[in-house]
Amino acid sequence: MAAPVTPPRGMRDILPADKARRERVLARIRSVYAAHGFDEIETPVVEDTARLFSGLGGDNEKLAYAVMKRGLTTDDLRAAATPLDLADLGLRFDLTVPLARFYASNRGALPGVFRAIQIAPVWRAERPQKGRYRQFVQCDIDIIGEPGVIAEAELITATAATLDALGIPGCSIRLNDRRLLTAWLTAAAVPEALQPKALITLDKLDKIGLDAVVAELTELGVADAAAMMRWIDLDADATASWSMLERVPGDTAAAVADLRALRRALPGIPLRFDPLLVRGMGYYTGPIFEVAHPELGYSLGGGGRYDGMIGRFLGADVPATGFSLGFERLIDLIDLGDDGRADMVALVHDADLDLGSLMTLKTALVADGARVRLLKRPKNLKAALDQLAAEGCTRFALVPADSAADVAALDWRRLDSAP
Amino acid sequence: MAAPVTPPRGMRDILPADKARRERVLARIRSVYAAHGFDEIETPVVEDTARLFSGLGGDNEKLAYAVMKRGLTTDDLRAAATPLDLADLGLRFDLTVPLARFYASNRGALPGVFRAIQIAPVWRAERPQKGRYRQFVQCDIDIIGEPGVIAEAELITATAATLDALGIPGCSIRLNDRRLLTAWLTAAAVPEALQPKALITLDKLDKIGLDAVVAELTELGVADAAAMMRWIDLDADATASWSMLERVPGDTAAAVADLRALRRALPGIPLRFDPLLVRGMGYYTGPIFEVAHPELGYSLGGGGRYDGMIGRFLGADVPATGFSLGFERLIDLIDLGDDGRADMVALVHDADLDLGSLMTLKTALVADGARVRLLKRPKNLKAALDQLAAEGCTRFALVPADSAADVAALDWRRLDSAP
Repeated sequence: MAAPVTPPRGMRDILPADKARRERVLARIRSVYAAHGFDEIETPVVEDTARLFSGLGGDNEKLAYAVMKRGLTTDDLRAAATPLDLADLGLRFDLTVPLARFYASNRGALPGVFRAIQIAPVWRAERPQKGRYRQFVQCDIDIIGEPGVIAEAELITATAATLDALGIPGCSIRLNDRRLLTAWLTAAAVPEALQPKALITLDKLDKIGLDAVVAELTELGVADAAAMMRWIDLDADATASWSMLERVPGDTAAAVADLRALRRALPGIPLRFDPLLVRGMGYYTGPIFEVAHPELGYSLGGGGRYDGMIGRFLGADVPATGFSLGFERLIDLIDLGDDGRADMVALVHDADLDLGSLMTLKTALVADGARVRLLKRPKNLKAALDQLAAEGCTRFALVPADSAADVAALDWRRLDSAP
Repeated sequence: MAAPVTPPRGMRDILPADKARRERVLARIRSVYAAHGFDEIETPVVEDTARLFSGLGGDNEKLAYAVMKRGLTTDDLRAAATPLDLADLGLRFDLTVPLARFYASNRGALPGVFRAIQIAPVWRAERPQKGRYRQFVQCDIDIIGEPGVIAEAELITATAATLDALGIPGCSIRLNDRRLLTAWLTAAAVPEALQPKALITLDKLDKIGLDAVVAELTELGVADAAAMMRWIDLDADATASWSMLERVPGDTAAAVADLRALRRALPGIPLRFDPLLVRGMGYYTGPIFEVAHPELGYSLGGGGRYDGMIGRFLGADVPATGFSLGFERLIDLIDLGDDGRADMVALVHDADLDLGSLMTLKTALVADGARVRLLKRPKNLKAALDQLAAEGCTRFALVPADSAADVAALDWRRLDSAP
């Protein structure tokens, strides 16, 4: 026996039942997004290092897998100042950087307002842990070219409709705006250079609590951190959360108008204003959002406006906003019911049955719309039938060596019953 | 304007119309394979270098992209004897090596005879040229655990059915067997050590002609290369090709019986015996096959039996055979007709229309089964409508600022006519 053979560390194989389930869920997500006017695209799994490690990806860049240049010599290895000098490509760590590059590459062939679907794997070399993988699928929709909140309204509507279509009830959307966070920190006299660190601290409130956040802000140099937090009602329900929007300190008029407009435009969607929602990435510039599930301690997805990013690739500013669902977090919540595929049936044939007759039978059944599995009759028929049932077969027929190639003559039996 | 931004060298972006088309074709291929009793699986895009560069991949290993180890130091760069010392993963160059690893990893959870579908991208750093990409999709079916030609019969039947379902008529399947090639070369006294090189020469007959092949074989040291080739009828039609099967020199009984059985079992499929079909990979051990298209100078797919390969990973021999279709070669041959999706309609709205009314209209239309695109009414309406038609919209309605959120009140117009 050889040594155990496993997938690469932190990655996994997807077996038949799981793969069928994943493809069905992905098809449903695709179909809802498409109904909402989005178009699917695909980019290569790798991008040039110059673009992948451009600083836009924040901490995710540190988790990216680098792909080595071709034709390196030992001299190249000796001459390299850093490992990254030996790489010219990297596996994408998200779908946003590739989308920005895609838009810059193909702008002339795309609509003025481009609504993109990307459903694809990304790679991050995170410490492997339960439920977290180094290759995982994201489902992103983005709207490029629309500066107004109509874009956010479309993203949030399509995302809420997708969660509905997947039968995941009870989700709400937490909303905030990077402009509000900036206004608030500025009003609290947090110097601009410290604001990114202050945001990281605010983002931890759920985990470390108010007192620890105040302590961290104080340590950062905020003069009166307790006072700065005083307008926030940590216990506000969804409705009360919106009255906080009116109390955000600082120059907030534009952002407040946008969030109010979203709330008014989407009365059927449970929206909640969350002044402490930060979202990690540095590139956000406007409304940001996250999907909260009533029973889960983590979000099912999120996104926001990133108006400056595409300009980095294109040399001309283009507004953009996107919403990403974490597929691996969704898939376990979904009960799709019946798998919707044609019945699978089995032909359990004698080993010396004429091969031509067997293939004629199989082809005729497939032509009738069945999925057909062949099984050479084993000594232990009972165990084999249990195995067929486990693989999803619902019926079987025994096909002895002297059978005619006649579908009508097959004697079908249900697979949960003994032969 | 920034410098041109392009996808990585030799790779490409897939734009919406092309992506929709590709997904439809893939869905059809999946569905035929599934009907024939195969189950789809998925493996990570990378494999450990120890397995990817094990020698099983032949020349393709030289084209593989290596992924750098994490956390390398400058000392590591200095100490490395070869670039590959710095890599622990690589992008897969085919789907066969990953399948063998998958089977070794998951054997206990799989049926005794496992019929696998893999539809997925692979990567090869080939010299970029027209129609050849460094990331491309393969569609593979494999049967693991079945030593007899019933496996090849199922593979060939499913592949022929797929080509039918895609509306690619006129294809034929060229068949040969590695055992016949070995028997012939042995009978012609080609030493075993020279046989791999002799096979490479035989494989070039289509391109360089008989005289050049004889010259190359002579140069290799074959005593009478002209005599060795004399039993072959280069002009044989499909029927005549099968009489050549009886003339293959050497110890051919088992292989001849297998190919005869396949021919007899698959009367509805245009099979042709091709004694010069070699297939490049060194791991083939039995029947090999290729899809020939009447008008194309290259094959649409191919495969063969590789009984020794899984044993390399598992430590126990397991028979296996597979058939791969080259998706990038198929896709351009296919006319799917109508795209089968719901009509896309456009709401061309005034900029100051109430956002809530607009979202209500959109959501109601989506609920009715439409795909809906929003467009803010531009100054040049005519050009915008042409653009919508080009994106696949069939109807539009103008939605002025004072519209009620009432779907029934929308005034639909066809998109090929002026407003």
